[in-house]
Amino acid sequence: MSLFIVFEGGDGAGKSTQAGLLADWLEGVGCTVTRTFQPGHSRIGAVLRQLLLDPASGPLSPRAEALLYAADKAQHADEVIRPALARGEVVVSDRYVDSMIAYQGAGRRLDPDEVAKLAWWAVGALPPDLTVLLDAAVEDGVGAKTDRDRLEQAGEAFHERVRSFFLALAAAAPERYLVLPARRPVAELAAAVRTQVAARLGAP
Amino acid sequence: MSLFIVFEGGDGAGKSTQAGLLADWLEGVGCTVTRTFQPGHSRIGAVLRQLLLDPASGPLSPRAEALLYAADKAQHADEVIRPALARGEVVVSDRYVDSMIAYQGAGRRLDPDEVAKLAWWAVGALPPDLTVLLDAAVEDGVGAKTDRDRLEQAGEAFHERVRSFFLALAAAAPERYLVLPARRPVAELAAAVRTQVAARLGAP
Repeated sequence: MSLFIVFEGGDGAGKSTQAGLLADWLEGVGCTVTRTFQPGHSRIGAVLRQLLLDPASGPLSPRAEALLYAADKAQHADEVIRPALARGEVVVSDRYVDSMIAYQGAGRRLDPDEVAKLAWWAVGALPPDLTVLLDAAVEDGVGAKTDRDRLEQAGEAFHERVRSFFLALAAAAPERYLVLPARRPVAELAAAVRTQVAARLGAP
Repeated sequence: MSLFIVFEGGDGAGKSTQAGLLADWLEGVGCTVTRTFQPGHSRIGAVLRQLLLDPASGPLSPRAEALLYAADKAQHADEVIRPALARGEVVVSDRYVDSMIAYQGAGRRLDPDEVAKLAWWAVGALPPDLTVLLDAAVEDGVGAKTDRDRLEQAGEAFHERVRSFFLALAAAAPERYLVLPARRPVAELAAAVRTQVAARLGAP
């Protein structure tokens, strides 16, 4: 059966590690998995990712930035996610619509409701079955990196707004979210994710 | 005084010729003019224009295409148009929001109301003072070119829908549009444009 699982959270929270462990486990129980990420995982995505994250692109207006993320999402949904789900696969994505609402809406101080409408329009209203939010204090994530991209340069208050907004999105729809403290041991987090996913797969 | 004038119409209708003649005349009567165009006239615009118009980019989903146009508009409005108007200049732009609604909405068959909302959100609700629509039969415009970009390849029915939609936008707000038949002599069209612009400048 097809299933669409998203990992969300700040940089350095361990999303790609957990996505990889989940994908390995899913393949071990016989699922066909498409692992993917936003922004950047489509034919035009690499160009957009470069524009969006490279400080050398120069100042981007907040609306232009949001619209570029939305364009990436639109192409990604049509080129990668929908076809994989239509083939009956499990799609595991590192970031999706919530990241855009949190970073571009709450982070950049655009109206989050407007950004949410924009993001859901972009992907043609395709919701994940489960979103795993890896929640971390801001100093545990970004602070550890030295080579920062455009969003990582945005400052601590920005990342605090993003973190709070992720938590608020999860609190508003608890049946579609699994919120985990990102600092817990990797294996423990992976087990918690597997339990939730297995339940949604009908315990294979 | 600042004034924002847009030329719209199909490819080959003579927009850039008329924009150039108007800019020359405006400078002759003492105005400072910013000549500009969409898509592509901002720091990130050239990259987006390449993505949008080069058939080598591969298939773009209609929503991704619309969102890239919107991103270009957002950056262009904040980086070029607003600063020029704030300096008291006359801005003369080859294409603006109407092109996006007509091509992406009516042409690509997305909902034109949704595309209009997207486009006006992108530019932060900045309307032109006057839009000159150079109306041409589809066979008079695109048909003449051999080196066609992505939109020019979209077929005659597409371009007929675009033409009709431009006319409908103009008909809905006649006080903000000047509709001219694009096949008339260049000098005659330029004179008609000057008359309208002069009236808006308070006849300099």
